[in-house]
Amino acid sequence: MLTLYHCENARSFRVLWMLEELGLSYDLKILPFPPRVLCPQYLEVNPLGTVPLLVEDGMRMSESAAICQYLASRYAPNSLGVESHEADYGAYLNGLHFGEASLTFPQTLILRYEMLEPEERRLPQASRDYALFFLGRLRELARLLGSRDFICANRFTAADVSIGYALMLAGIVGQDGRFTPAIQEYWGRLRERAAFKRAVAIQDKKTT
Amino acid sequence: MLTLYHCENARSFRVLWMLEELGLSYDLKILPFPPRVLCPQYLEVNPLGTVPLLVEDGMRMSESAAICQYLASRYAPNSLGVESHEADYGAYLNGLHFGEASLTFPQTLILRYEMLEPEERRLPQASRDYALFFLGRLRELARLLGSRDFICANRFTAADVSIGYALMLAGIVGQDGRFTPAIQEYWGRLRERAAFKRAVAIQDKKTT
Repeated sequence: MLTLYHCENARSFRVLWMLEELGLSYDLKILPFPPRVLCPQYLEVNPLGTVPLLVEDGMRMSESAAICQYLASRYAPNSLGVESHEADYGAYLNGLHFGEASLTFPQTLILRYEMLEPEERRLPQASRDYALFFLGRLRELARLLGSRDFICANRFTAADVSIGYALMLAGIVGQDGRFTPAIQEYWGRLRERAAFKRAVAIQDKKTT
Repeated sequence: MLTLYHCENARSFRVLWMLEELGLSYDLKILPFPPRVLCPQYLEVNPLGTVPLLVEDGMRMSESAAICQYLASRYAPNSLGVESHEADYGAYLNGLHFGEASLTFPQTLILRYEMLEPEERRLPQASRDYALFFLGRLRELARLLGSRDFICANRFTAADVSIGYALMLAGIVGQDGRFTPAIQEYWGRLRERAAFKRAVAIQDKKTT
């Protein structure tokens, strides 16, 4: 039995998308953002107060890109996952981490200091610094992609889910105007997937 | 043939430590920090300008925690790695990502806005905000560790290397005073490892 704790458009969207790609049944708990403040009873479930939290028979995971790899290994190792004997195994692991640590974290600085913090705590310099940081990482994404359809292994994998969420977040924080044509096409390819659309529809329906 | 591009005490230390744990032979290139500025010819090797860069027969990886998992899978899957059939596989993947995205990135904000930026660009608020963020993640580390010697699988793994580097960085940015006794003991256990000590000695010798 899988249970996912999720906030609309948060990193936990990666897990929702993966679960839809895999066609698994799961219990979805949608929380208001930030749950730490708006849903303090969640701290009893997850004292860290962040989403995602995935619970599977008592096993708990809180890192969204790690959960994507876990679900791929467990339920679709040679389609959504890339196995260690495959030539692109290194590129797959790199893509999973790159999507979060390099492409997502800098954008959370823009979100925080340009949009979420009260006016008097906003830091335009930090927001600009990390927009520039993000731009450098987008250039790396363009190099890694080249003219490929997906980031590795000539197929859609959990690494594309990790990176795809970062591109979705770029739309939310107003950084998607910086996409190169190749990144724009890649992002178009990802969000046209039936499972991505189902994940969007599920969170929209449950939130409203 | 493995080549590692490294800067002293940077995230690439994780990879240096892993290579020493594995007893592999490798070519080590130590660059001044930040290489983008002090060693512009490095941009021809890695246009992203960051370390680590690991090159293995033309395969390239830039994400330190991903490289740790890659090396473990390839060279020591059932000791430094945790395999997908093991009970702690989820905890292992979570630890690898948690060490970087949750424990290391917030500290880079402290490093940047308190130590690296010129005086007029420092942002004490951002530094304080992410010191608080880091403290919350340290509490989670204490919960995950409990009274265990290592983060998962009852043995030292690549996930401990990922987290261990974050604890090393905490010493550099002055956040190690916040360690709980259990974290302090865990960190003591990690830095007593022969491979950790060799990695420190290697970068010290090559840098001076």
